[in-house]
Amino acid sequence: MAWTPYKETVARLEKSFTCKARVEVVGLMEARGRILARDSIAQENQPAFPTSEMDGYAIRYVDQEKGALTLTHRVPAGTEISLHVGECECIKTFTGSLLSEGADTIIPIENVEVEGDKVRIVTAVKEGFAVRPVGEGYRAGDVMVTKGTRIGFAEIGVLAGLGCVQVPVVVRPRVAVLATGSEIVDLGEALPTPAHIRSSNHVTIAAMAQHAGAEAVLLGIAGDDKALIKQRIVEGLACADIVVTTGGVSVGDYDFVKDIIGDLAVETIIEGADIKPGRHIRVVKVGEKYIVALPGFPYSSAVVFGLYGLRLVDAMLGRDYARRFCTATLEEEYAKRSKFTEFTACDVREKEGKLFATLEGKKLGSSAILNNLLGGATVLCIPKETTLLKKGENVEVLRLEM
Amino acid sequence: MAWTPYKETVARLEKSFTCKARVEVVGLMEARGRILARDSIAQENQPAFPTSEMDGYAIRYVDQEKGALTLTHRVPAGTEISLHVGECECIKTFTGSLLSEGADTIIPIENVEVEGDKVRIVTAVKEGFAVRPVGEGYRAGDVMVTKGTRIGFAEIGVLAGLGCVQVPVVVRPRVAVLATGSEIVDLGEALPTPAHIRSSNHVTIAAMAQHAGAEAVLLGIAGDDKALIKQRIVEGLACADIVVTTGGVSVGDYDFVKDIIGDLAVETIIEGADIKPGRHIRVVKVGEKYIVALPGFPYSSAVVFGLYGLRLVDAMLGRDYARRFCTATLEEEYAKRSKFTEFTACDVREKEGKLFATLEGKKLGSSAILNNLLGGATVLCIPKETTLLKKGENVEVLRLEM
Repeated sequence: MAWTPYKETVARLEKSFTCKARVEVVGLMEARGRILARDSIAQENQPAFPTSEMDGYAIRYVDQEKGALTLTHRVPAGTEISLHVGECECIKTFTGSLLSEGADTIIPIENVEVEGDKVRIVTAVKEGFAVRPVGEGYRAGDVMVTKGTRIGFAEIGVLAGLGCVQVPVVVRPRVAVLATGSEIVDLGEALPTPAHIRSSNHVTIAAMAQHAGAEAVLLGIAGDDKALIKQRIVEGLACADIVVTTGGVSVGDYDFVKDIIGDLAVETIIEGADIKPGRHIRVVKVGEKYIVALPGFPYSSAVVFGLYGLRLVDAMLGRDYARRFCTATLEEEYAKRSKFTEFTACDVREKEGKLFATLEGKKLGSSAILNNLLGGATVLCIPKETTLLKKGENVEVLRLEM
Repeated sequence: MAWTPYKETVARLEKSFTCKARVEVVGLMEARGRILARDSIAQENQPAFPTSEMDGYAIRYVDQEKGALTLTHRVPAGTEISLHVGECECIKTFTGSLLSEGADTIIPIENVEVEGDKVRIVTAVKEGFAVRPVGEGYRAGDVMVTKGTRIGFAEIGVLAGLGCVQVPVVVRPRVAVLATGSEIVDLGEALPTPAHIRSSNHVTIAAMAQHAGAEAVLLGIAGDDKALIKQRIVEGLACADIVVTTGGVSVGDYDFVKDIIGDLAVETIIEGADIKPGRHIRVVKVGEKYIVALPGFPYSSAVVFGLYGLRLVDAMLGRDYARRFCTATLEEEYAKRSKFTEFTACDVREKEGKLFATLEGKKLGSSAILNNLLGGATVLCIPKETTLLKKGENVEVLRLEM
């Protein structure tokens, strides 16, 4: 079997992608972590009027040196009154109050001495002090939060300020996960024999999908029963945008998945890749939906879902997959172990403003070792042609949990 | 008023903290993003028995050069049979199958020619090839996921492999948020006058708390009504671990919050800090619960909640607040604008393995500009004694959304 170059598999996947982002509207407090579906544009200036930045006395700057000023009114925040500050007058003003007409400067309360209605300025300020000018924060027409932004707390606050109570967000894609393999048993079930192992792939992939912003549907475990596997995949296609299988894609006698998805495929996108782990990866399209068939080993299936499945999830959400990559300095030499493009578990740490990648504590061995992804789920990306990475070299790192 | 040094306020807050982490048990798929409450320890070796890493033929390595071997059995994965591989024999074995007794090496199916029951090895392998030794992944007694870890997808998968269906996690602390100020109106309400503004603080703080792993309770808006503010704070204390207020902590005529929490306080922890924004910060303790009184400006309240409130949330979850800090190279000169310890909005970007902090696009002005926190919510921490940060200097950055 000829293994398609990794870059070509990525290009094929990207080219295959034709879905348009679907939009739903959610309440502001439900929008956290969701992807904004339309640019959010300010309708007004912020502030809309000159506003006091602190508690103090609104004056005409030219009166500052004219001795005691006469206090005429008090304007608590939230009060709408068009009072006028005349010559040698002042108006008591509070944080957030509108600035009275005629005034251009606020004297903080700490800077004055008050006796009856006479306010004497002890410490002078510069012109315009403590006045928030119109549009200080933003102006009508400014694009405040752009489409495709993941909504964090600052976005929530800004949207609230814009009066955005309902937020248009991208509908979460749905990822259905089916684990295959006669040796695996589901969560909470007893192991019938020492030859059985507990399934972890299905929950790992489901959690990866959720973390990336998708909904997960667990289709359970389908053993090595060809009819059951096919039935579950078809059920998955009925309710999800992406059906992910683990196991059964190699060339062995029990590797039914590749035949089944071959039958179901309308279009084959990826049929093997020159990557380690996961060279048996298959991706097919059935209408607008995808089947992503991953290898069965836990480390392999997680990494390969990260390479192809998360790329699909990101695309469906309108997010840039490239954000997951960064550069780091490698802390120890690493000899590549295969002739493929390799994805090897590492940890990334920041020290004095630089990122370092280390393989310390990561176990060498088969692609079964999921615990190598603990603590951040980052992998070193080693190009096919590279044989040795030197200590101190700049390397490319892919962060699967970002 | 003398402003307590920032470091001292942090030390006081940390010293005040006496709560023990509370533990609850949740289903594995509900554990994502939660904090593990107890070390998770492997009870078995993984794998527990020597296991085949691929589809192939289990042989005795010493037989590899002895010409054609006799195929005696097939052992699909999940089959428990104690078959024995004798001299010049082989057993067909699949990915995940237990290795038959006597065998020590797997010949991949690609490396042989099969005719009837005769298997001829075309390409030799080294001893032990494709056999996963006992404990390759981990050994019984290994601490797999440590207490205090935030549970990501790899942790979910590893816990599934360990047979952990129910996961002990730290109970989410509850943060109740009350906004005060007569000029602000709640989400979805019309602005009665041009002097009114939409509240954003309450949802910003609630979303910050949720992002950090807490539950949020919105206590609404309490205007400048002293009795109502007090009643709401008392209600908040009844249901939450931390009650957060915004506004009303300055020295103005309508700043009731400081008096109210002064009355409610059993112990005063912080009464002002030499920080900008937020020098009027107050933190008091009522039993094991906290009231955190923030300033009213949107940027100020978010940053000061980040400095003190998130520290409490992290402590209640058993997480290390220090993870939020990193070092970056400053991309442009910045003259500090106050005599306080300053927290100025910035963006952090990674370029070729180095982190850079930039103030580009951030607006100078009052502490009202919440949009300065858009796109990552990071702030530059500038010590009190610093007056100028030079371009290219290493600076400390605090990531509030981490």
